[in-house]
Amino acid sequence: MNNKFNINALGRKVPTDVNGNNAIPYMGIGKHKPTGRKYAPPIVSSSDYPSDGNKTIESLKAALIKSGIADGMTISTHHHFRNGDLVANQIFDIASELGIKNLTWVPSASFECHVPLIKYLEDGTIHHIEGSMNGSLGRFTSEGKMEGMGILRSHGGRYQAIQDGEVHIDIAVIAAPTADAFGNATGDRGPAACGLLGFALADSQYADKVIVVTDNLVPFPCYPWQIHGNLVDYVVLVDKVGLPEKIVSGTTEITKSPDRLLLAEMTAQFCNEAGIIKDGFSFQAGAGGTALSIGIYFAEILKKNGWKARFARGGSNKYLVNMLEGGLTDYILDGQTFDLEGVRSMRENSNHLNTSPFTSYNYHGKGNFSTMVDVVILGATEVDVNFNANVVTHSDGVLLHGIGGWQNCLFSKCTILPIPLFRDRISVIKDEVTTICGPGELIDVIVTERGIAINPLRKDLLEKLKGSSLPIKTIDELKAEGDAICGPAEKPRFTNKAVAVVKWVDGTIIDTIWQLEN
Amino acid sequence: MNNKFNINALGRKVPTDVNGNNAIPYMGIGKHKPTGRKYAPPIVSSSDYPSDGNKTIESLKAALIKSGIADGMTISTHHHFRNGDLVANQIFDIASELGIKNLTWVPSASFECHVPLIKYLEDGTIHHIEGSMNGSLGRFTSEGKMEGMGILRSHGGRYQAIQDGEVHIDIAVIAAPTADAFGNATGDRGPAACGLLGFALADSQYADKVIVVTDNLVPFPCYPWQIHGNLVDYVVLVDKVGLPEKIVSGTTEITKSPDRLLLAEMTAQFCNEAGIIKDGFSFQAGAGGTALSIGIYFAEILKKNGWKARFARGGSNKYLVNMLEGGLTDYILDGQTFDLEGVRSMRENSNHLNTSPFTSYNYHGKGNFSTMVDVVILGATEVDVNFNANVVTHSDGVLLHGIGGWQNCLFSKCTILPIPLFRDRISVIKDEVTTICGPGELIDVIVTERGIAINPLRKDLLEKLKGSSLPIKTIDELKAEGDAICGPAEKPRFTNKAVAVVKWVDGTIIDTIWQLEN
Repeated sequence: MNNKFNINALGRKVPTDVNGNNAIPYMGIGKHKPTGRKYAPPIVSSSDYPSDGNKTIESLKAALIKSGIADGMTISTHHHFRNGDLVANQIFDIASELGIKNLTWVPSASFECHVPLIKYLEDGTIHHIEGSMNGSLGRFTSEGKMEGMGILRSHGGRYQAIQDGEVHIDIAVIAAPTADAFGNATGDRGPAACGLLGFALADSQYADKVIVVTDNLVPFPCYPWQIHGNLVDYVVLVDKVGLPEKIVSGTTEITKSPDRLLLAEMTAQFCNEAGIIKDGFSFQAGAGGTALSIGIYFAEILKKNGWKARFARGGSNKYLVNMLEGGLTDYILDGQTFDLEGVRSMRENSNHLNTSPFTSYNYHGKGNFSTMVDVVILGATEVDVNFNANVVTHSDGVLLHGIGGWQNCLFSKCTILPIPLFRDRISVIKDEVTTICGPGELIDVIVTERGIAINPLRKDLLEKLKGSSLPIKTIDELKAEGDAICGPAEKPRFTNKAVAVVKWVDGTIIDTIWQLEN
Repeated sequence: MNNKFNINALGRKVPTDVNGNNAIPYMGIGKHKPTGRKYAPPIVSSSDYPSDGNKTIESLKAALIKSGIADGMTISTHHHFRNGDLVANQIFDIASELGIKNLTWVPSASFECHVPLIKYLEDGTIHHIEGSMNGSLGRFTSEGKMEGMGILRSHGGRYQAIQDGEVHIDIAVIAAPTADAFGNATGDRGPAACGLLGFALADSQYADKVIVVTDNLVPFPCYPWQIHGNLVDYVVLVDKVGLPEKIVSGTTEITKSPDRLLLAEMTAQFCNEAGIIKDGFSFQAGAGGTALSIGIYFAEILKKNGWKARFARGGSNKYLVNMLEGGLTDYILDGQTFDLEGVRSMRENSNHLNTSPFTSYNYHGKGNFSTMVDVVILGATEVDVNFNANVVTHSDGVLLHGIGGWQNCLFSKCTILPIPLFRDRISVIKDEVTTICGPGELIDVIVTERGIAINPLRKDLLEKLKGSSLPIKTIDELKAEGDAICGPAEKPRFTNKAVAVVKWVDGTIIDTIWQLEN
């Protein structure tokens, strides 16, 4: 690949051209002001749709053909079924059977269950993936085997890109646990219930053709209509739309590891001493064992003080549901359910709210919810001495994770990364991270088992933690401790070929993923 | 006004130019195929909005100024407060105070409470109204006193026009019974609760600037977020956003008139004999006394047979709520609450669904709900021998009513107009109606106290009603009876000046409102 590069505002080398499109280098937070207008889908007439509201069609293949599937098109899917998705692979099996080439796949995330698609990346059915590439697909990309350049976006960035027309989706395929023949669809019920379908919202609003695939067709009206049938072209009934046992995956139990429990306890104590936890506060913690444990500590602190959170942001799980049902939070604002209790609560409890990347994260909206959260707890694979953090590649340079809502959550009032100081004998604190996913100025606190580093920009937090019993250190001190224990880490070796880019929430390019040297 | 005219597919003379815009004559049902793309609002950046989510501003005036109010702009409001609206007049008081001229007002409907705006129509503050002009504003228009040409649209047509960019709204002002500082807003609670805010949905999605005005500010999140704060620029807190006692207006009691009860009974019997009422059926009846009474008959028939409707379309009221709570319908699909029981039910009952012109009526969607309703009961001021009907002008030629959802509802599987054969000694059945609002081919049945006329296009209904005890007649027979009783009616006398146009659901012009001769 013959590309030119720019140096962006973080000093990272980023391509000027991504898959034939001009790419804007990251300019700093809030510096890139978008111009132009949102993507405008073609106007349609309801006279071209069945008057009885029945849009069912015999098969996904028929729906894709009717939708005009052709070489070079962009096809999107969502990842609410996570590793239990049964639909995405079928799309490309059909495309391959039809001899269609050069498709762009825009999943909201991909998982190990999508490894069968590697053959279509190899044979030219799929040109490239825009969306997170977890595990094997990430490694495939890192090895330079994908024809086009991968594009990684946050959940909010994906909404922004589709809304703004940076990605034009020709055909969206929305797997739905329940739907009616008109195309109204919901994720909160049905044999493959996954909670909500918010990751597919932008697809439904902006794709030219929208196909709903379900294994649970109910009489009109299917309600809630998380996806509006008024945006849907075809409905396909299949035997099984997802594997329920794999839909609810990820870590859904609090950690039992003493190291992680220590991190959780230190983080909760930090929040308490900083005055973040109070009546009416709000928080977001992810689905990992450490994050779950922090939630438990938060709940205990609220309870002890007779306080109640105003809202907890999900990924929801049984612990958040316990808080909601136990009166420790007014609302769960949920973007993704991580276990069956989350699904049940969303279905039954009107204070368990269905949010989407549009409401929660879209940077090109008139504000979004992310900035109103008092504290978020996130992970990272690496952090550098300027608090820049990496969440997509490991220190060996391999792309292994998507961004998820991580970048979007950085806009909270306080962002804390509780991370072990070293993993596999490699210190996580670097002079420079392999891939910058989030600029350090948005990352407020790093909590490690050997000390807590507060971003010098947060003078208020430094002030509040003065005299704390917690081990407050500088990031340089933490780095020195990590280096002393682990020794100097080998840097990953890359070729000069860009295999993927990491977009910032505003559509600019914050960093590049490079091909691994053999 | 120097205008040219076309003759449309119904033979009506319609202007080629409406307020400087090219106008497409009505071409027949489903004949006009739209081209082009939906309106694309400018892309914004959340970095230009307050990060604490607080968009409150001290006054409506400040919000309008910040929104850039200027000569020639288009400003929209909704009519969920009906005759209790306190906000629309204030907007134009402010505009007048600022010396702004030539505004276009796009209400979803106007009422007698808006009569104070006549002075602004007279002094050039407001150039013209696009939206229903009930009562005095209609008469003002009919008298040729409005500077520009009025444009009447159905609820669905208004959504379509905004979506398609036929109307570009510069500033939408959304009065909301409850909202948070971020702009999330709901109609189902608060001192001025009106149920829902669906008529303002298009405005929130497509206007350049969106102002929410509320008298009940709650901590984030305001839920349900019938209006998404992510689309809102400013939030204004006022003392009183609407007069609750006038919000719930219209006829909300079943009729006691023996004539109307007869119409109701005949209509229900007709539906029963035609096999329309059955387990799982659906219906929509308006808020008038006759329509309410028909709903009562429907409920009785369901109960007697042990049946349950799948859904009842609202305008909701206590009678529909009784059906829902009594297990006689699975759902209310509500577009507008007509009484406090409707508001309560919408707030409390998750099977009382919040619909909008987008879901229910938009003709330029991938279908809409209106075509799936088994039977709708509507009114009309006049009907002609081709079943064309009028709902906006009276036989004296005066514009007195808006279209509401009337045109959209015609797409149901069976449309019935129960109307008295004569009113004020004038027969309602004409050779030609004063204004065609709906083409006869969509109107299936006319029920009068002296007989029922089935549209000859509905051979199935004619077949089913063979041998009925109901007085089935031809429309010509009904007309002859009316004429015999009332004698020939005087035709209204008009000048050749078009004062308003009636749009069809697809944006074409179905008829013209003419200036009354002095």
